[in-house]
Amino acid sequence: MDRQGRWMEIQDCIPVWRQLDAAQQGRILGALTSRRVSGGDLIHTGGLECTGVLLVRSGRLRAYILSEAGREITIYRLFPRDMCLLSASCMIRSIQFDITVEAEKDSQLWTIPADAYRQVMAESAPLSNYTNEIMAARFSEVMWLVEQIMWSSMDRRVADFLLAESAMEGTARLSITHEAIANHLGTHREVVTRMLRYFQGEGLVKLSRGAVELLDAKGLEALGRA
Amino acid sequence: MDRQGRWMEIQDCIPVWRQLDAAQQGRILGALTSRRVSGGDLIHTGGLECTGVLLVRSGRLRAYILSEAGREITIYRLFPRDMCLLSASCMIRSIQFDITVEAEKDSQLWTIPADAYRQVMAESAPLSNYTNEIMAARFSEVMWLVEQIMWSSMDRRVADFLLAESAMEGTARLSITHEAIANHLGTHREVVTRMLRYFQGEGLVKLSRGAVELLDAKGLEALGRA
Repeated sequence: MDRQGRWMEIQDCIPVWRQLDAAQQGRILGALTSRRVSGGDLIHTGGLECTGVLLVRSGRLRAYILSEAGREITIYRLFPRDMCLLSASCMIRSIQFDITVEAEKDSQLWTIPADAYRQVMAESAPLSNYTNEIMAARFSEVMWLVEQIMWSSMDRRVADFLLAESAMEGTARLSITHEAIANHLGTHREVVTRMLRYFQGEGLVKLSRGAVELLDAKGLEALGRA
Repeated sequence: MDRQGRWMEIQDCIPVWRQLDAAQQGRILGALTSRRVSGGDLIHTGGLECTGVLLVRSGRLRAYILSEAGREITIYRLFPRDMCLLSASCMIRSIQFDITVEAEKDSQLWTIPADAYRQVMAESAPLSNYTNEIMAARFSEVMWLVEQIMWSSMDRRVADFLLAESAMEGTARLSITHEAIANHLGTHREVVTRMLRYFQGEGLVKLSRGAVELLDAKGLEALGRA
């Protein structure tokens, strides 16, 4: 893709792009790399690694945390035009946690190396303020998660997850295993299986191998609400 | 306090202070107000309120979230020279959650109105980058909390809480009720009482009315670890 094409695409991902001067834009465009990944690929595995700032051109990414025992919990999803900051956590000293990022679908990504992004952010108030907004948005998603974990019952969480997946995929028939649902929610497969069987008994879903079909979205929405 | 005295104190709270120009410093100093609060006072109650950026001069604040049913969970503490951003959440559009802030001890605070802070942050890359670091630090505390809630057993969480309180207060004898511990950890009083009685049976703590005395810090540290 030529420089002009990249310029247009980056501007879509970074709304403050026009507030950077030519030298700043040049530093980012010069360092930018493009990458294709397949669904299931690990893109960032936390720890000391500093993958850089990721911009999603197409596809979908999932960010999650891992326990020592290998349990997962999804903390957020990234869609086209979203920016993943936490894969460049070396850039911001106070980020003291690790996330893992995987491609949920075949995806095309831009990577801005952490050094280039940090240099521009250090001198550009617009880019720094925008970065702040992105951080606050991810922080908000995690606070929502805390509230879910703390105050929401597991039936409510499974129901909300199914409804959100169905809306995101645009279908009532989800191709997903009980294991995968458990990994999203940070619980055990057995807990999810028990809950889904209960939902099936209530006529809310229909289970088949590797799939969950939503039969009664309104019923799922009403579940556990006063 | 005269302007020079305030200048010195603010510089202690905001390490990038010298990187602001005279007009920016003047805007913040001109808008700054001082306030004394007593232990137990509510300082910020979330929702639409925009209390402003709080700087702790002395004392201690606690930030927590509240469920609809009135249950609490502590998300972080603020100590002298700390800055509370989330009490000015109106300032950053993407902050989509409410916290409550209370004084845990008699405290002296500076308040920078959100408008003044936002105006300076919009044009100052150093202040914006510093704000980013503060946000990332709070975000990290919440991620630690998620890991605790998800992967840590309740005995480990109560033991860690007692050890942290003891280190913070500089005493092995904590004046704290079971109810208050439950509120910090987002659980029920009965759960905490049961756990503390178990700890007492193991010779780890001694319970008395309104107090918990740590008898065996090493034992508490070892608890539940492989």
